[in-house]
Amino acid sequence: MAKRSLPRHVGFIPDGNRRWAASRGLSKEQGYDFGIDPGLVLFEICRSLGIPEISIYGFTQDNTKRPVPQREAFRSACVSYAMEVARRDAALMIVGDETSDLFPPELRDFRTRRGNGMKVNLLVNYDWEWDLAGLREGSIRSHAVSRLDMIVRWGGGRRLSGFLPVQSVYADFYVVDEYWPDFKPEHFDQALRWFREQDQTLGG
Amino acid sequence: MAKRSLPRHVGFIPDGNRRWAASRGLSKEQGYDFGIDPGLVLFEICRSLGIPEISIYGFTQDNTKRPVPQREAFRSACVSYAMEVARRDAALMIVGDETSDLFPPELRDFRTRRGNGMKVNLLVNYDWEWDLAGLREGSIRSHAVSRLDMIVRWGGGRRLSGFLPVQSVYADFYVVDEYWPDFKPEHFDQALRWFREQDQTLGG
Repeated sequence: MAKRSLPRHVGFIPDGNRRWAASRGLSKEQGYDFGIDPGLVLFEICRSLGIPEISIYGFTQDNTKRPVPQREAFRSACVSYAMEVARRDAALMIVGDETSDLFPPELRDFRTRRGNGMKVNLLVNYDWEWDLAGLREGSIRSHAVSRLDMIVRWGGGRRLSGFLPVQSVYADFYVVDEYWPDFKPEHFDQALRWFREQDQTLGG
Repeated sequence: MAKRSLPRHVGFIPDGNRRWAASRGLSKEQGYDFGIDPGLVLFEICRSLGIPEISIYGFTQDNTKRPVPQREAFRSACVSYAMEVARRDAALMIVGDETSDLFPPELRDFRTRRGNGMKVNLLVNYDWEWDLAGLREGSIRSHAVSRLDMIVRWGGGRRLSGFLPVQSVYADFYVVDEYWPDFKPEHFDQALRWFREQDQTLGG
């Protein structure tokens, strides 16, 4: 059983924006804006480490059933984040159902990966059933997303919540209890340190 | 966000048999036999609590690439466990590829659920790709297995290792560091206590 060094593909579940906002006396939807900067810091950290690919849970089709102010807030936060990442020369791909009105039109061009540099997959209006339903026509809809080595989730939840089920099958799962807007680089340092200590068995 | 009481369906990943054996100076394959009794104790606990359904990771198609003595040992342990659970009046279903030579013929009749009582799904010669490939003909091959509320894994690993990816999408994941043959009822007590404290969001 080989010990690993750096993960080749990390998934991020930036959860806890609404609880963070509520804990500060803000309305829930105000939490999302505070998630953009941490995401850019994390992007730069991954890039400087030489991690080839990252996937980020933006929002799901289920999430869009939330009250409209929240929906507008996380939609807008995802668009801002995506545009900034594209501007910083990442190879951005948006993964999600672009046939729905809830898919931001600004992001349509990125349903196919654009750009060079670190691969960034942002899940926008994603749904695991939508993803797997692609198998009926040959392959999952997220087929251009590689297998995940590690998933890091903020906000204390110990579940995948429908995040890329196929790519997650052998991923090591690390949970940070702090809410996502309270992101600190140390969280990811600790996750990487922990990852290096795990055995890689891949079911063998 | 409602607090839950008892999970309706729990998945178990009884990992660590080989490491347990090695730690006692036994050969790796000797570990599996020591996993049968803990599995029966856990079965009785779940039944007495009134949990309607449990799923247990027996072995995968990947596992069968291990050395023959190991393969024979976990295969035989799974057959013994299944037969005993059936004798104890569970509603047993075996989930796995029965078209392969590595599927134990004794278990073939249980590919369709048999019996009444608590539902027990035992994964035998299972493979997540085999499972999902069923979608090409309409539905996943494990379609008779319901969604999981919680997964408990022994042996310290924080990954699903291909365990029922569709049913796991919203499952809370609890890890016990002890090896599976060192199972104690307290492990599951703690898991259930922890489960009750989690919010149930189901992506809403």
